[in-house]
Amino acid sequence: MIIVMERHASPDQVFQVEERLKERGFQVHRSEGVERIIIGAIGERTPAIIEAFESMTGVEKVVPIVQPFKLASREFQSGATVVRVGESSIGDGNLQIIAGPCAVESREKYLQVAQTVKEQGATMLRGGAFKPRTSPYSFQGLEEEGLEILAEARALTGLPVITEVMDPRMIETVSRYVDVLQVGARNMQNFFLLRELGKIDKPVLLKRGPSATIEEWIMAAEYIISSGNPRVILCERGIRTFEQYTRNTLDLSAVPLVKQLTHLPIIVDPSHGTGKWKLVEPMAMAAVGAGCDGVMVEVHQSPSEALSDGPQSLTPDNFGKMVRRLRSMERALNSM
Amino acid sequence: MIIVMERHASPDQVFQVEERLKERGFQVHRSEGVERIIIGAIGERTPAIIEAFESMTGVEKVVPIVQPFKLASREFQSGATVVRVGESSIGDGNLQIIAGPCAVESREKYLQVAQTVKEQGATMLRGGAFKPRTSPYSFQGLEEEGLEILAEARALTGLPVITEVMDPRMIETVSRYVDVLQVGARNMQNFFLLRELGKIDKPVLLKRGPSATIEEWIMAAEYIISSGNPRVILCERGIRTFEQYTRNTLDLSAVPLVKQLTHLPIIVDPSHGTGKWKLVEPMAMAAVGAGCDGVMVEVHQSPSEALSDGPQSLTPDNFGKMVRRLRSMERALNSM
Amino acid sequence: MIIVMERHASPDQVFQVEERLKERGFQVHRSEGVERIIIGAIGERTPAIIEAFESMTGVEKVVPIVQPFKLASREFQSGATVVRVGESSIGDGNLQIIAGPCAVESREKYLQVAQTVKEQGATMLRGGAFKPRTSPYSFQGLEEEGLEILAEARALTGLPVITEVMDPRMIETVSRYVDVLQVGARNMQNFFLLRELGKIDKPVLLKRGPSATIEEWIMAAEYIISSGNPRVILCERGIRTFEQYTRNTLDLSAVPLVKQLTHLPIIVDPSHGTGKWKLVEPMAMAAVGAGCDGVMVEVHQSPSEALSDGPQSLTPDNFGKMVRRLRSMERALNSM
Amino acid sequence: MIIVMERHASPDQVFQVEERLKERGFQVHRSEGVERIIIGAIGERTPAIIEAFESMTGVEKVVPIVQPFKLASREFQSGATVVRVGESSIGDGNLQIIAGPCAVESREKYLQVAQTVKEQGATMLRGGAFKPRTSPYSFQGLEEEGLEILAEARALTGLPVITEVMDPRMIETVSRYVDVLQVGARNMQNFFLLRELGKIDKPVLLKRGPSATIEEWIMAAEYIISSGNPRVILCERGIRTFEQYTRNTLDLSAVPLVKQLTHLPIIVDPSHGTGKWKLVEPMAMAAVGAGCDGVMVEVHQSPSEALSDGPQSLTPDNFGKMVRRLRSMERALNSM
Repeated sequence: MIIVMERHASPDQVFQVEERLKERGFQVHRSEGVERIIIGAIGERTPAIIEAFESMTGVEKVVPIVQPFKLASREFQSGATVVRVGESSIGDGNLQIIAGPCAVESREKYLQVAQTVKEQGATMLRGGAFKPRTSPYSFQGLEEEGLEILAEARALTGLPVITEVMDPRMIETVSRYVDVLQVGARNMQNFFLLRELGKIDKPVLLKRGPSATIEEWIMAAEYIISSGNPRVILCERGIRTFEQYTRNTLDLSAVPLVKQLTHLPIIVDPSHGTGKWKLVEPMAMAAVGAGCDGVMVEVHQSPSEALSDGPQSLTPDNFGKMVRRLRSMERALNSM
Repeated sequence: MIIVMERHASPDQVFQVEERLKERGFQVHRSEGVERIIIGAIGERTPAIIEAFESMTGVEKVVPIVQPFKLASREFQSGATVVRVGESSIGDGNLQIIAGPCAVESREKYLQVAQTVKEQGATMLRGGAFKPRTSPYSFQGLEEEGLEILAEARALTGLPVITEVMDPRMIETVSRYVDVLQVGARNMQNFFLLRELGKIDKPVLLKRGPSATIEEWIMAAEYIISSGNPRVILCERGIRTFEQYTRNTLDLSAVPLVKQLTHLPIIVDPSHGTGKWKLVEPMAMAAVGAGCDGVMVEVHQSPSEALSDGPQSLTPDNFGKMVRRLRSMERALNSM
Repeated sequence: MIIVMERHASPDQVFQVEERLKERGFQVHRSEGVERIIIGAIGERTPAIIEAFESMTGVEKVVPIVQPFKLASREFQSGATVVRVGESSIGDGNLQIIAGPCAVESREKYLQVAQTVKEQGATMLRGGAFKPRTSPYSFQGLEEEGLEILAEARALTGLPVITEVMDPRMIETVSRYVDVLQVGARNMQNFFLLRELGKIDKPVLLKRGPSATIEEWIMAAEYIISSGNPRVILCERGIRTFEQYTRNTLDLSAVPLVKQLTHLPIIVDPSHGTGKWKLVEPMAMAAVGAGCDGVMVEVHQSPSEALSDGPQSLTPDNFGKMVRRLRSMERALNSM
Repeated sequence: MIIVMERHASPDQVFQVEERLKERGFQVHRSEGVERIIIGAIGERTPAIIEAFESMTGVEKVVPIVQPFKLASREFQSGATVVRVGESSIGDGNLQIIAGPCAVESREKYLQVAQTVKEQGATMLRGGAFKPRTSPYSFQGLEEEGLEILAEARALTGLPVITEVMDPRMIETVSRYVDVLQVGARNMQNFFLLRELGKIDKPVLLKRGPSATIEEWIMAAEYIISSGNPRVILCERGIRTFEQYTRNTLDLSAVPLVKQLTHLPIIVDPSHGTGKWKLVEPMAMAAVGAGCDGVMVEVHQSPSEALSDGPQSLTPDNFGKMVRRLRSMERALNSM
């Protein structure tokens, strides 16, 4: 890191900073300019250390140089992580297509849609048993009953199942039923939850927080990995911007960036990422063009009767059409 | 709510929407314009209902009319809520000044700073036993040992104590030690945590999420109140913006807005709200000018040695000067 | 539009609103709910009218129903606008590939890169003669000399040329030299400039403002069209978000949205949209997947010597590779 | 500035960077860490230079160290700039209260409201003759006729007058009529306009762009000052955030920050900054608490009949009440 001293910092202030750096094991390089002194400090930096030096008198600012994540970085592991999920893999070069309704609403409806999306080409299933809702008066999910239905759908279709977990007390239960545990966007920085997910033996799908930077998102992955679980899949699902026509703004530049910065696989959720079913197919096509490892979309037999996220859900027919286009594009890209 | 039909919606599509509205107990008023039909629907609306109608064919959009919160609203309760905390009250017209270090770092240091801020005019104490940190490699707090120190500081000074709780499994323990449980900004939409806090018999200080709208923040308060606990205090602590000079942008318009929309008390945290101690006093003064019920600031004996948030911490001396200015301003405002 | 009265609005206040609506030629439909009265008003709305009613006593809020743009809308013109540029067309189903350096730096260098990008597959040229720079101390462009070089490059390559105009006093001059006049992102709401561009007989490329919503952007197009010039091409170039790794966040959902809302062609600029040359190719591929009419990228012989925007410029070799991939993808999409 | 080399940068790449730095007159200090080499470069940096080095092979990133503005900085001029306007001064420790309607709508109405706000305590007048409007269908101002009315109001009341100029072609005309030329928020980065305003002999009120950082805003002031006009007054008028209840989010932390970073005076516009008249008084009080040099508010005889910005305009009565409270607060602050 670089420590920029104030213009009129005294020699003693500079000395104090350098002494404290050395105490903490940093190599110190001083550059004296016409206007101010800059101290280069080489060693391990953490946010806490940056803050400590920023508080010293005479210091104008501290500039971090290297990215704060380690285990998730390409520098730590140059080869791509491939996450095994059931019989499939995410990150092995094949496009995974994850589909299902936002919430598990009933046994009959879920099993039916699961069967349908499988026939249309889905390779994994999604469905929420616990639903985080902005309003306490909205449908909150079928909870454990929903988990049983998900397990039944897996048995029926042979496809792996992904569902969200919101409360550390539920991790054990949820793990018994599903193949991948999802951390929802609102919980991306629920660090207690992340740490507990680092202790289990199942893959974790980590959604990006709606206002998180890519660095904060990777740091959340670092929490899980550093707690013991390297099987992390990132999921871009749109960020909050000023736009009113869409629910979120899907940030597809996250796809190549995550590939360059980390070794983790990344999938894209154009349903939450746009909030409008008419935008789902073009944005799924764009996501594949950007190089993602999979897409996750919401499909509902009858979107207008969905208990949540109807406006962004595809009908099974539209889903089928989209799958065919995505597969054509995948083939075209593979043959380039 | 208002349902706007597409320009070329068929009579049957309009009929379907109106029938479904009536099934759900809405009064329906149709307005036929030159270009399109608009249906006014009067009845209870929830986000789920809005989504359901947005998904129907022929519907262009659904416009909610009234705000989604009820129990927190001025319409529900016109008089201001005063939250009793120990011997003091938040929201009774007196300015509360809450102070202490970001984290409880050791028994000796905490008891000393607690005593000092009391002497300088603090009316409540703050201090973190559990710290949510962006990096898994940063200091995470003393945990239960920190709670014991907080309880000792309360006994020593006679001042009520506020601390953050991050995990629903810890609520019971934390409640035994402190007077007010704080929900941190990153957990503002941790709905499981909010619901559990609705079941306890202690006040809850609800910080605004860094990218939350005021409506989402009040909805989070609604979760706590609707679960049984009406003693909610809101705390503005800055929102994320494009600004680089400050850590967050303190949104002081939240103060009069919250007063107009809800009956809940609101305090302001200019330490997190700016991230720079040189901005804390002017922004605390501004917050009092805007009409807040209290301010919460970070004070540390030696900010450059703080294990977290040093750059935004006041020294005890600067804190003392600020308190004198805030009290002068409070008197001037009361005498207008 | 819908006028929502306050909960305790008096009958007289309701009457006043309805009378004023009728005076202004609106059809009025009143809906009386349990809690409040809602007035539907059918007629032409403008922002000014909305504000006028929002200021009336007893009015809680005014909700606009239909979008504020007309001439740019799909409802006004259902078929796509194809903008003729030289011998080519933008919006006719063929992908246009616009390339060149950020700024025209010298005659020799510009003619050389123009020739090179043509050989590599560019179909139009770009280059700035006037450069809007955040700092008054940065290179501001070659000005009129730059225009002459652009005209020479056009003669040499036969490709049409696009350049930015920033000042209404320069429109006439710039028009004499180039084929398409570009409005830069920072000038998207420079309404005097937009109106003057509505009076010329050349196509206008309208870049999206870095914090503009899609509606505001289309309204800027509406300024040009309503002043007499229907040949408007929209260009998505990234919006400002909290992200630090990229210069902007490229919003590709703008592509299908603009196609649904308007009849105008839309191209994508992944160079400004990301600020990093390593992201340009994947995002150009994604843009084509999303359905854009063209891409515009920065190419420089020696990016590290560029006087502006070096970090986001492709070398001619990388540009050539990208063109081959984009054309493969275009063929694959056309054959689906 | 600091140049961070990539982890596996070759010795030759490091050499190239250092050579080029020396060519450009930088002092170079190399720090060799375990993982990478960092080069400190002392000399004048501009955005263009940063970009040039970021484009060199082997360079990971370039970190600017000192702020890019010079003439506006406290380091360049430690004493505060006081801008003389007519008989008054902005920045001399007295609070200026600038008032008037958003737009000049007619001679009779403007002269009446000017007289009224003077009686209620306004010290300067505002009013728009040219109005930048998002929609081409909204009222665009009385243009030159409006300027004549402003000049008449100045003669009548003896108060200085502020109005916006949007087009470089109008600067000369506007200068003949008014005392202060305002750059509107949408034109903050209209660099041609800024440069022309640097050549006149009148003060310039520079509004902050709705999405501008404080650094970008100060850089816009630097454009004016470096073109020859040091009489710049900054005006905070709210930034765009996700909030829906307010039109903008007033960033009052800009007040102490601008005071710390620059020597320029700063005023606050709580009318545009909130968009709601009920928030104007509390936010004006907060602005004074934060230490601003003046407030600028919209006042209209009959806000519901205003041709623009009615919802945020105070009635003359409410304006009078606010002035009395602001003056009480000013006295209290002065006596601390």
